[in-house]
Amino acid sequence: MFPKEVSIVEVGPRDGLQNEKRTLSVDQKIELIQLLSKTGLNRIEAGSFVSPKWVPQMANSDAVFKALNPENKIHYSALTPNLRGLEAAIDAGVKEVAVFGAASESFSQKNINCSISESLKRFEAVFALANKNNIKVRGYVSCVMGCPYEGEIPPDAVTQVSKELVDMGCYEVSLGDTIGVGTPMATKLLLDDVLKEVNVSKVAAHFHDTYGQALVNLYTALGYGISSIDSAIAGLGGCPYAKGASGNVATEDVLYMLNGMGISTGVDMPTLLKASAYIAELLGRSPVSKVASALLAK
Amino acid sequence: MFPKEVSIVEVGPRDGLQNEKRTLSVDQKIELIQLLSKTGLNRIEAGSFVSPKWVPQMANSDAVFKALNPENKIHYSALTPNLRGLEAAIDAGVKEVAVFGAASESFSQKNINCSISESLKRFEAVFALANKNNIKVRGYVSCVMGCPYEGEIPPDAVTQVSKELVDMGCYEVSLGDTIGVGTPMATKLLLDDVLKEVNVSKVAAHFHDTYGQALVNLYTALGYGISSIDSAIAGLGGCPYAKGASGNVATEDVLYMLNGMGISTGVDMPTLLKASAYIAELLGRSPVSKVASALLAK
Repeated sequence: MFPKEVSIVEVGPRDGLQNEKRTLSVDQKIELIQLLSKTGLNRIEAGSFVSPKWVPQMANSDAVFKALNPENKIHYSALTPNLRGLEAAIDAGVKEVAVFGAASESFSQKNINCSISESLKRFEAVFALANKNNIKVRGYVSCVMGCPYEGEIPPDAVTQVSKELVDMGCYEVSLGDTIGVGTPMATKLLLDDVLKEVNVSKVAAHFHDTYGQALVNLYTALGYGISSIDSAIAGLGGCPYAKGASGNVATEDVLYMLNGMGISTGVDMPTLLKASAYIAELLGRSPVSKVASALLAK
Repeated sequence: MFPKEVSIVEVGPRDGLQNEKRTLSVDQKIELIQLLSKTGLNRIEAGSFVSPKWVPQMANSDAVFKALNPENKIHYSALTPNLRGLEAAIDAGVKEVAVFGAASESFSQKNINCSISESLKRFEAVFALANKNNIKVRGYVSCVMGCPYEGEIPPDAVTQVSKELVDMGCYEVSLGDTIGVGTPMATKLLLDDVLKEVNVSKVAAHFHDTYGQALVNLYTALGYGISSIDSAIAGLGGCPYAKGASGNVATEDVLYMLNGMGISTGVDMPTLLKASAYIAELLGRSPVSKVASALLAK
């Protein structure tokens, strides 16, 4: 039941860097994305169009996108939380965007100041403008296996918002274990529910490794036929809800597991390690990736 | 097919500490083992009877064992690589020992200076003396999914030495992914072979997390019904074959996964975290456990 191929969505330059203390310069961000573009990855989330007042790490995403080569067949996407963000993304030449919904009411209120259904309603204008401009829209659902405010989240809450995002026009929904609390059993309960309403080809797994469970949860998701996985080079990004804890699962660790399972991704490990080494040196620390740490130590 | 209960074998005080640069004092080792003894763990590998010239970290294991309370129903075991080690262990009141075999000829030669079959032959005297003294013997098989010298190891090499160890009298063989290179598929190929010859109730999984794959490999092994897992508090122990890389899978991370799967262990997480915090402070670094890092950060 495992897929033969998996599409890795590299989210390090966005979800990763936005949770790092140190803000990179535009040139450094471009260099990182260009190194990633040589690895065989063909989906890279390269920035976010949000107020730099709230997310200074993502300032100047327009300059980043303008510098990327649109001819190289890589899908560079941007997070656009609202219409204003989408307009700015279009101006910068972005061809794919992502919107951000939550499966937890408290998280939605604290994070974007409105209810889940209000947030979906606001996306209508985003989808309309995206359609008009032939821009693909991906949907994130956060807190799918737990919320920092509410604790456990019932799977059907995830299913409902996932289905609505797909119905509104998302080509894929990415299920985010935002605080990394999921386990294999929670992953099963989640997917048993979500896949009743959303076709597996439209579901991606976006798991954080805060409790070290990301790979085993991804393995569980692969068993359901999920073939789209989000990860971040060098495990970039911490967890804002547990200081000192880790965030996104590392792309290197995901690739090592997939390689070992005979699942093809098109991504080359040695080239990926160059991007790891680059960003680790910039941030002045070891990659938060056991694979990168072991291989770079050799 | 998952077991309802798993027995965790805490190997931090031996396999962990012997690979740490810093050598703990006898009192510090005793304090660590006593903290671990309060957690609900009932199998703890507490030391090793080897020459302090080769493994200075394990010097004075006799003093450690003499200080442990034999009345508290916890099985404290010791690694005894040869007859001399076993004699010293008996003098210290040890009731359970472990012997160490390899599935790789090159590793056996470089590590214990003899072939695999010679090493098994040498154990005959160890088993004889152990039997005479009513001492249980556990067997380790190292390099079960890869060798630092030979690379891949064929599963039937593991099966053969595992079967011989059981035939010689080991109540359990612990399959060690010494360099942590295993993946779920390699784990399946290994267990498909080993379990043809050795009953699953006599097989333990001892996986290192050098490449971040230990939990997903353990999850795979649990699916085969394996119900004995080795792990080390705070992920103690590095990997002598890849400097800066990590070693044993952390007990906290294993426990978190098992708890999430509804598999009982009898081990209490908050009490376990006290042992984590103690050893991390002694070694002057964070635990090599994402669970401990996340929970202690709260």
